Amino acid sequence: MNELTINLKPADKMPLYEQIYQYIKENIIAGKIPYQEKLPSTRLLAKHLEVSRSTVELAYEQLLSEGYIEAEPYRGYYVAQIEGLYHLTREKETHVEREADKKERYRFDFTPSGVDLKSFPYNAWRKLSKDILIDDKVELFRLGNPQGEPGFRQAICKYLYQARGVNCSPEQVIVGAGSDYLLMMLCSVLGREHIVAVENPTYKQAYRLFVSQEYPVVPIEMDKYGMKVTALADTEADVAYVTPSHQYPTGIVMPMKRRMELLRWANEREGRFIIEDDYDSEFRYKGKPIPALQGNDGSGKVIYLGTFSKSIAPAIRMSYMVLPRKLIAVYQNKCGFISSTVSKVDQLIVQHFVEDGYYERHLNKTRALYRGRHDLLIRGLQPLADVCRISGEHAGVHLLLTFGGKVTEEALIEKAREAQIKVYGLSDYIIGEKKKEATVLLGYANLSEDEIREAAEILCRVWRKLLVME
Amino acid sequence: MNELTINLKPADKMPLYEQIYQYIKENIIAGKIPYQEKLPSTRLLAKHLEVSRSTVELAYEQLLSEGYIEAEPYRGYYVAQIEGLYHLTREKETHVEREADKKERYRFDFTPSGVDLKSFPYNAWRKLSKDILIDDKVELFRLGNPQGEPGFRQAICKYLYQARGVNCSPEQVIVGAGSDYLLMMLCSVLGREHIVAVENPTYKQAYRLFVSQEYPVVPIEMDKYGMKVTALADTEADVAYVTPSHQYPTGIVMPMKRRMELLRWANEREGRFIIEDDYDSEFRYKGKPIPALQGNDGSGKVIYLGTFSKSIAPAIRMSYMVLPRKLIAVYQNKCGFISSTVSKVDQLIVQHFVEDGYYERHLNKTRALYRGRHDLLIRGLQPLADVCRISGEHAGVHLLLTFGGKVTEEALIEKAREAQIKVYGLSDYIIGEKKKEATVLLGYANLSEDEIREAAEILCRVWRKLLVME
Repeated sequence: MNELTINLKPADKMPLYEQIYQYIKENIIAGKIPYQEKLPSTRLLAKHLEVSRSTVELAYEQLLSEGYIEAEPYRGYYVAQIEGLYHLTREKETHVEREADKKERYRFDFTPSGVDLKSFPYNAWRKLSKDILIDDKVELFRLGNPQGEPGFRQAICKYLYQARGVNCSPEQVIVGAGSDYLLMMLCSVLGREHIVAVENPTYKQAYRLFVSQEYPVVPIEMDKYGMKVTALADTEADVAYVTPSHQYPTGIVMPMKRRMELLRWANEREGRFIIEDDYDSEFRYKGKPIPALQGNDGSGKVIYLGTFSKSIAPAIRMSYMVLPRKLIAVYQNKCGFISSTVSKVDQLIVQHFVEDGYYERHLNKTRALYRGRHDLLIRGLQPLADVCRISGEHAGVHLLLTFGGKVTEEALIEKAREAQIKVYGLSDYIIGEKKKEATVLLGYANLSEDEIREAAEILCRVWRKLLVME
Repeated sequence: MNELTINLKPADKMPLYEQIYQYIKENIIAGKIPYQEKLPSTRLLAKHLEVSRSTVELAYEQLLSEGYIEAEPYRGYYVAQIEGLYHLTREKETHVEREADKKERYRFDFTPSGVDLKSFPYNAWRKLSKDILIDDKVELFRLGNPQGEPGFRQAICKYLYQARGVNCSPEQVIVGAGSDYLLMMLCSVLGREHIVAVENPTYKQAYRLFVSQEYPVVPIEMDKYGMKVTALADTEADVAYVTPSHQYPTGIVMPMKRRMELLRWANEREGRFIIEDDYDSEFRYKGKPIPALQGNDGSGKVIYLGTFSKSIAPAIRMSYMVLPRKLIAVYQNKCGFISSTVSKVDQLIVQHFVEDGYYERHLNKTRALYRGRHDLLIRGLQPLADVCRISGEHAGVHLLLTFGGKVTEEALIEKAREAQIKVYGLSDYIIGEKKKEATVLLGYANLSEDEIREAAEILCRVWRKLLVME
């Protein structure tokens, strides 16, 4: 073959060399330029197409590197045997699942697990992401440390020490793609011979995880100080999953005395452990932050769990677990071979985010934002002050409203739903028999101040009406 | 306070507004500007510092948004109560773990799990990453679908159908951060009441995973067609973990007849499953690619596992699992609540990488590259043709050398080590009693052609010498 007539489009977005490459490739795949056919020399084709020789050379190099043609020294380019090559067709399909669309639409959604994504640090993230990818760093794409990159774990330790009073060194830290995954791995570390106690009500995601891992799970009653350690001690449970800094979902802060009781319980027997899930301790609007339980643990009984899901964004999939020193060897033996679930690029982005001061700024910013919404919501609910009690305020991103009288949770939720407002019942977080009092949860992280003002007004109106009717 | 004297540095990399912000913030934290102190007005401070008023306004806004100061309408800016704010100190520590440094250094490492990272598509990756982050898309950082984004799963299905003959629809696909994680989750889906059969020798990572999940694991003997189904049927095992397209580490390709026997075994009893790990099927250098076993399975017995670790890079942490339809409900019930372990940004990058043709190009390019290294290594080992047998060639990224006579694996590995070359013994992949024949694995993905040429020459020399001495 001495000529190839390609209809080149110089004005096209696709560079000329790529147009030549595409044309030849497609013709080889279609069998129009058959196996062993000789291609025109780069000089001839360049002349024929009226392009520079280097343009044709670039196209041939691409074809060569992808195995469509072969170069024979002093003889030229020949079409290769392409039997095993990949030719993936390209047309995009229009049909895509629309699972999300099935959900009912509300005007206002007081989800307690919301995060304000409008304040996500897009610019910082883009900048860090670009900086990290700027050099062709081979190391970036090589398999990393199973526990997470040492520098990142160091940054986490430092943050935890300063912000949460957690005492740990990098070899105790395991970075993982979400708390669900880390709990799953922790189950492998601890082994199957345990009974797990959870607060009741509790964070259902963790509860379901323990159930899926086939543990017997014992719900433990709470009083106003959190999990009742006397009730815990009456069970056979030897692992207690707790949220002492800000109980989920009641918002109870476990006081020091109860924390000490819990630690004593763990110390009474070998093999007892406390899992401290510090999921949203970043957000407190009154008084000093409460240090983590882990900081008071002198005997390696507390397994600490933290996450960037609430403080940065849920979709970045990054959490961490701090193991007591005596569990490190067990982890290494049972799970140390499991590759890290977080990409190095993402670890480096967050490491720099923390080290370069972006995280501090972002935390203070979102905290101020959430506090504003928190205050506004409480003010907006004032008209209901005589019929319900607010609790769980001053921290986290949601509060609870408990109603006296005979009104049910279902009725409150239904009235809100009719006004296109989604609120959440405490019953969803309770294991076993539901409470008689009606309690609804209102999360405010995901709503603007205007939305909170409007939604609170509507809620006061429809709920007042409901209560009067009874 | 009417004046604040800040030593501004106009030539500094840090913008002026940020210098003002930093100065005031640090002084508030240090208590030098106390709680309730009034700050100078923006007009006054701008005049005093000889900067524009908008510069000062920017600094104050930053302080305001992070909660260091408060604005009182018509009165001005006051220092806020900063008790609960985050002040993370910034100095980076120099001490970082150096776990990697402990490893012995080799001149040439024939690791069978290598990937050529020099050919990682850095430019495409950077471009896609930039394109995806370009808009402040709130959706990007909201928690995604637990199974992975629908569009991405659609792209995976299409690729699997075209390249591997896998029949599936997006709702069968689960995206996860690595095959270890997906196997761990699969264990939860299948439940604990199973006995797992593995090929012997096998991929130790999977073997260890099953052991860590406390399953009884039965190693099954192989012949030249792969796992012996007769031997499998003699055990109590009801789950078989296999690598039929390219057995790891022997490189055996399971022929159709044996595949049918295996499927028949699975069909004989309810609750039996085959886990097909198609870890490196992308790389074949001779003949047509062999379709996946999953494509021959008409009764929902095959769980298919694939990964981008080998075909793109290990550190991106992205694998996928295709469940038979009848396991979808079980998955949703037991594990459907578990959040995805892969960030949406990463899913979108790979989705576009596949859909926009980059993946096809990259596969063909690396395949050509690896084939070149494969051919060169075989040629380089020619001088040993009379003393050893090559197997596992024409696919994957490693081959095996089996030596006759009395020479031991240890001696071969030791001789190579003395010459600063790392080779791997088959014994490491065998469960239980080792074979008598000495077999070494040579992976070539991670070595350049020059390195392969030089290392092969050295190996021929030192091993020849060793064999003569016996």
